[in-house]
Amino acid sequence: MHSIGVATRVLGSDDVSIKITHCGVCYADVIWTRNQFGDSKYPVVPGHEIVGTVKEVGSNVDGFKVGDHVGVGTIVNSCRDCELCNDRLEVHCDKGAVHTFNGVDVDGTITKGGYSSFILVHQRYCFRIPENYPLGLAAPLVCAGITVYTPMMRHKMNQPGKSLGVIGLGGLGHLAVKFGKAFGLNVTVLSTSISKKQEALSLLRADDFVISSDKQQMTALAKSLDFIIDTASGDHPFDPYMSLLKTGGVLVLVGAPSEVKLSPHSLISGMKSISGSAAGGTKDTQEMLDFCAANKIYPEVETIPIQYVNEALERLIKNDVKYRFVIDIENSLK
Amino acid sequence: MHSIGVATRVLGSDDVSIKITHCGVCYADVIWTRNQFGDSKYPVVPGHEIVGTVKEVGSNVDGFKVGDHVGVGTIVNSCRDCELCNDRLEVHCDKGAVHTFNGVDVDGTITKGGYSSFILVHQRYCFRIPENYPLGLAAPLVCAGITVYTPMMRHKMNQPGKSLGVIGLGGLGHLAVKFGKAFGLNVTVLSTSISKKQEALSLLRADDFVISSDKQQMTALAKSLDFIIDTASGDHPFDPYMSLLKTGGVLVLVGAPSEVKLSPHSLISGMKSISGSAAGGTKDTQEMLDFCAANKIYPEVETIPIQYVNEALERLIKNDVKYRFVIDIENSLK
Repeated sequence: MHSIGVATRVLGSDDVSIKITHCGVCYADVIWTRNQFGDSKYPVVPGHEIVGTVKEVGSNVDGFKVGDHVGVGTIVNSCRDCELCNDRLEVHCDKGAVHTFNGVDVDGTITKGGYSSFILVHQRYCFRIPENYPLGLAAPLVCAGITVYTPMMRHKMNQPGKSLGVIGLGGLGHLAVKFGKAFGLNVTVLSTSISKKQEALSLLRADDFVISSDKQQMTALAKSLDFIIDTASGDHPFDPYMSLLKTGGVLVLVGAPSEVKLSPHSLISGMKSISGSAAGGTKDTQEMLDFCAANKIYPEVETIPIQYVNEALERLIKNDVKYRFVIDIENSLK
Repeated sequence: MHSIGVATRVLGSDDVSIKITHCGVCYADVIWTRNQFGDSKYPVVPGHEIVGTVKEVGSNVDGFKVGDHVGVGTIVNSCRDCELCNDRLEVHCDKGAVHTFNGVDVDGTITKGGYSSFILVHQRYCFRIPENYPLGLAAPLVCAGITVYTPMMRHKMNQPGKSLGVIGLGGLGHLAVKFGKAFGLNVTVLSTSISKKQEALSLLRADDFVISSDKQQMTALAKSLDFIIDTASGDHPFDPYMSLLKTGGVLVLVGAPSEVKLSPHSLISGMKSISGSAAGGTKDTQEMLDFCAANKIYPEVETIPIQYVNEALERLIKNDVKYRFVIDIENSLK
């Protein structure tokens, strides 16, 4: 799955040509390299947490110039004409957004992702990485970061004093904790593993850590949270987590369990909601990148060479990463 | 289950004593007379869609006087001290609201509902029925009506031009259609039974009627609704209904299926939500009653004598009612 760059088209007037320096490793890379959804179009070049420097720009490109630090996230095209695109929610485009890899672009080509040294993208789906932000650390922000930032903003969870629960402490979860603290929230990590406690409290600065299988701890937390971000990808019960929400509280699903199953009582009693969220729009993504730079929010990453990526995917499946792998593509290929 | 009134306490300074004229028949009456939740406290006197006239008021009562038309809904007490009570969301009281029947009041007595000629209630849980509103028709409003009105208001579904789906056309569903039309919405009834089509369109003035098992009709409706009120009490799949929602759309559950089960994809793709709602607060209930009087919104009812109530409950279980039974208690007892 290691490519040194496949040019799928010549540079268009709105295109930005990017020399990729780093690419984050997302669970999506496991899903499509292993054809878990049954729709993989081989050869798959995964990776949608892409950062690099601008190599060339088309004649209409006004926001980027050669040498700029930029990022590309989960999508590389959309209709740019529907209500959702006009609202800068291109990822929800009415005609279907084109995913960064394993997608079918408007010209029929299969998109190739960031495990590569080069990518070409319409400027609309290209983000500015602030110059003072370490480029490699920005990679996880354009997928993991925006995936947790979007629902927090949408549900007004950037208001100091509110209480946030975070289920799962991987790439997404650890960023949810960091955003929560930057927003001034009271953050509780809900985990199945006591081994994550110390880092959650000291490194990530969560306020509380609760083992979700411990009924006593869970009961003590009942009706105390405004909002829960559920980043767990494995199957798990929902009713125990719903009981932690205050009246009117919301649990947002950003992971990928195989099903959602709960008692109607968990929703009806206390007017609670389960909601879903996927990545985020281009306006929010740029805003999130600028917010991270301004507030010195940095993902915790394990930097790896491209040669290590198959082992990294195996470790990701076992949740054995603190907290995101980032492939140092530029140095791997030297 | 027919009572001629059990005085559980003497008139307190904040109490309103009510001569009951009518009581609506809610599915809750089936649940607790048949001990379906396993917590029935016999003898059960059901009924929480109560209307009548004021017989006597306590010394502190300022909003009601003898002879006034009034209603009592699903609760008769709460702490009146917590944040939720202070927000006039007493039904979600932190210490637990006291239900109108089969509840345990603060003095330990088991509450008795509206299948009775008399009830005594703290003025906070008593509503003014506008004088020009037919008293018997007001009964279904204080449970069925407020149960659909509350989530519509909470999710800003009183804005003309928005699109509403209504699952199930019973006591709750038919009122959701009427509220929807009064708010200027485009209303689609989603039903399993073609037999309800004509009345839905002509009597209730729904804009569209779709058989939910008809895949072609459902596909034509994909991504078209802002909001769905699900009033169905039987088990049913959720994914087909979620597919009808626009990006950011919400399905609110007000019925009582045995479980909620759906694909995470139904939530994540399009940032959709499933939410729950139960009855409503006292401020909203009064507002809803006044709105119904101002806009001439009347429930469709089948008026019955108290002697018919066991048969009515049997028919309710079979959904054989258009659209709410109301017991004419005053005339039954003459």
